[in-house]
Amino acid sequence: MDNLKLDLNCDMGESYGAWKMGDDLAVLPFVSSANIACGFHGGDPGTMRKTVAAALKHGVALGAHPSLPDLLGFGRREIRLSPQEAYDCVVVQIGALAAVAASQGARLHHVKAHGALYNMAAKDRALADAICRAVKDVDPSLVLYGLAGSELIRAAQNAGLRAAQEVFGDRSYQSDGSLTPRTQPGSMIEDADASLQQVLSMVQRQRVTTQQGVEIEVQADTLCLHGDQPGAALFAQKIRAALEAKGVKIATV
Amino acid sequence: MDNLKLDLNCDMGESYGAWKMGDDLAVLPFVSSANIACGFHGGDPGTMRKTVAAALKHGVALGAHPSLPDLLGFGRREIRLSPQEAYDCVVVQIGALAAVAASQGARLHHVKAHGALYNMAAKDRALADAICRAVKDVDPSLVLYGLAGSELIRAAQNAGLRAAQEVFGDRSYQSDGSLTPRTQPGSMIEDADASLQQVLSMVQRQRVTTQQGVEIEVQADTLCLHGDQPGAALFAQKIRAALEAKGVKIATV
Amino acid sequence: MDNLKLDLNCDMGESYGAWKMGDDLAVLPFVSSANIACGFHGGDPGTMRKTVAAALKHGVALGAHPSLPDLLGFGRREIRLSPQEAYDCVVVQIGALAAVAASQGARLHHVKAHGALYNMAAKDRALADAICRAVKDVDPSLVLYGLAGSELIRAAQNAGLRAAQEVFGDRSYQSDGSLTPRTQPGSMIEDADASLQQVLSMVQRQRVTTQQGVEIEVQADTLCLHGDQPGAALFAQKIRAALEAKGVKIATV
Amino acid sequence: MDNLKLDLNCDMGESYGAWKMGDDLAVLPFVSSANIACGFHGGDPGTMRKTVAAALKHGVALGAHPSLPDLLGFGRREIRLSPQEAYDCVVVQIGALAAVAASQGARLHHVKAHGALYNMAAKDRALADAICRAVKDVDPSLVLYGLAGSELIRAAQNAGLRAAQEVFGDRSYQSDGSLTPRTQPGSMIEDADASLQQVLSMVQRQRVTTQQGVEIEVQADTLCLHGDQPGAALFAQKIRAALEAKGVKIATV
Repeated sequence: MDNLKLDLNCDMGESYGAWKMGDDLAVLPFVSSANIACGFHGGDPGTMRKTVAAALKHGVALGAHPSLPDLLGFGRREIRLSPQEAYDCVVVQIGALAAVAASQGARLHHVKAHGALYNMAAKDRALADAICRAVKDVDPSLVLYGLAGSELIRAAQNAGLRAAQEVFGDRSYQSDGSLTPRTQPGSMIEDADASLQQVLSMVQRQRVTTQQGVEIEVQADTLCLHGDQPGAALFAQKIRAALEAKGVKIATV
Repeated sequence: MDNLKLDLNCDMGESYGAWKMGDDLAVLPFVSSANIACGFHGGDPGTMRKTVAAALKHGVALGAHPSLPDLLGFGRREIRLSPQEAYDCVVVQIGALAAVAASQGARLHHVKAHGALYNMAAKDRALADAICRAVKDVDPSLVLYGLAGSELIRAAQNAGLRAAQEVFGDRSYQSDGSLTPRTQPGSMIEDADASLQQVLSMVQRQRVTTQQGVEIEVQADTLCLHGDQPGAALFAQKIRAALEAKGVKIATV
Repeated sequence: MDNLKLDLNCDMGESYGAWKMGDDLAVLPFVSSANIACGFHGGDPGTMRKTVAAALKHGVALGAHPSLPDLLGFGRREIRLSPQEAYDCVVVQIGALAAVAASQGARLHHVKAHGALYNMAAKDRALADAICRAVKDVDPSLVLYGLAGSELIRAAQNAGLRAAQEVFGDRSYQSDGSLTPRTQPGSMIEDADASLQQVLSMVQRQRVTTQQGVEIEVQADTLCLHGDQPGAALFAQKIRAALEAKGVKIATV
Repeated sequence: MDNLKLDLNCDMGESYGAWKMGDDLAVLPFVSSANIACGFHGGDPGTMRKTVAAALKHGVALGAHPSLPDLLGFGRREIRLSPQEAYDCVVVQIGALAAVAASQGARLHHVKAHGALYNMAAKDRALADAICRAVKDVDPSLVLYGLAGSELIRAAQNAGLRAAQEVFGDRSYQSDGSLTPRTQPGSMIEDADASLQQVLSMVQRQRVTTQQGVEIEVQADTLCLHGDQPGAALFAQKIRAALEAKGVKIATV
């Protein structure tokens, strides 16, 4: 039970031009990793600069958060692109954020695909391989964040990338390790205590109880916090405090 | 007269999605530097990859060709953005192309602003400073290409960047060293021999005869070739041969 | 003092995809005209539909709010496009919103250019003419909203369009009838009472006192309310009540 | 054999900004209907204006050619949007082109979905219904072009829209009436005579022989010509002449 460690990651920098999203500054004190939008679903160049600066100020690890090219749909709609197209999109998005980091004397730490790209790559191995190849070709030291137990994690391991298995405290799981689709009842865990219990079980026992009541194994390297919801910062603060109270060290992977 | 050297640069990778522009493969054998579009005026991620690969195959130096954000106007329309906005746009565009280069085991060599951004920065020192700061903050080893004698060159020198002074063979000059605006008669030099003579004068004697018939000084580090015009490759081949016949070595700066 | 009438207009529908802007539903009860974004600076297709529906529900007149093509800059940055390009941009934006209106059994009432396009057209007659020609060519029954006394108003009158002269309660005026630029001190009138006095003076006496203390003539057909600021709805409610208390009827032109 | 009639339609106006596509002016003399891009996959506002003008000059019927929002993918990639999102996208695109037509004193005649939207709607009835509802809500007099025998045709008929069943001369058919996917061998009919025979069979006998050698019924109201391929105009000219020689009148539906 000692030496338990967990990364807390949160999507950030998803404002665009005149439009604001999320309250990054309020959440930053409580997370260890930031997934920063790279312009394809949010995150204009100025927002990228400001978000990187804020993350650096809080000592939070910088991650690129590449998306499908879909500003209108916020990267949440599946687009049937080829693995090569996905590869190309991921390369340029990592590069854009890496340059912003470099301009502030910093380097990227990880890559986490956004929205539909994340979900598609969790199941589609060819797409997962393309994403991992893009990450590796640009910078093989980058950590690949992906849904715990998914094809994306296997693709990263196969590519020789360091992989961080991501778990969710506010989503219920299915027996195959996938998240219950948001369209189904019981997909969201809205009770904060239940959410915390699920996280602790995953961190301490490498196990989660599925919606069907079965326990399955899960490796929890990093926990996804949602920054665009009301009360996000408060929830982040609470879960961090609760985890630390249980002896879990919060630090990036 | 010995050891004369000139860089031949050409804009490339300006196709976008299903739309093609220019004949990059035909021009590449004759140039020493490629200015590659980074997505803001042309150059989608796949085109960036293919253009970098083709340039590397021909041993041509890779340059980022950042633009104002104006796909519809091909980056040719002035947009009144702040120096900070220009800085941000340049940073992410350099980064996008740098990642494409890195994914192919290569590095960028230079940065040349595109279209209206290039023209505005030739005269607007605050904008020129912002661009040079962006280049320096991302990678101080990059060479800054700018109109010979312009504010952009001065800004680069002031920033401690290596600057390459760019000259034109197919445009006439004004007494202040600026190019005759395209809207004025006599702006274009359409005769190939006259064009060659102007280039030779600039390379061999560091002088150009203006439209008014006066000789002014000019430093010619790199010559701009236009790749999107009919006969571009043939013209590139001819001018390279003519320069080499006069003992001018064609090589990147 | 009898039969005084004023239109209250407000920009609306400027959300885009996942990003929200303004509180349209709160402001709608107090205005008589809505200027609805058409996709070039905000206003995706779904937002256009919802905004038109809300305006119709409140009996508010529908106006197209065409912009320069600049989502990133929210249409607030000057782009040096040709009158023909401006014409084309205005035509398609009016059309997009007109179709949304038609799909809900309604018709457009007016057109008000947005942001930089509005400001540029107030001074640049060729641009103003192009905008008015676009409006007239698409639907000559549309009312053209423009800065009171500006080139845009003259262009509309010259084109035979019905023009609505727009005034501002929260901005100070210069002696030539232009608004004090926001970059200058005293451009904003932040005191609500002073703002109301300025509006009443314009409506009742067709006069406004400039920042220099001189009275100039002004025709006030429509008053611009800003919907994207905190307290926008409350201010709209107050000014409407104050105007009605003075016998000014609030109705569209 | 008397009174046989066929519409020849062709996609047009798919250039964008500085990028050109197709040779619309060469094809226009031979077709009766033009499907004009509306900005979502191609077709900037200026291109829309010029294409409408050219079509009107040739007496060719104007159709809106709405697409998924995917400039980068030219509207050829499936995007999993909701029927409501599709509805909204179709409404604004029809409106944009309708305004361009109106500005030139003309009206739209039909709507044909583009690329992936066309293909998805051929099979997905909810999507097909949404598209037809959009067309009907904007202008119930518009003709809906769709793949012969597809869900889109059924949706149009169900909505009370006039439907034009579209057939292909250069694509082979499957037994269920669908086109052989381009990824499969034998999908394209490259022999001009075979192509003409297929068209004649469809027009004269309402029958087409599938790739499997079976005859199925098909209603041929309009034939799709592809304008973006080399020799497009020549092929259009030939097939028109051959059809007219067989007594088929070429005219819009």
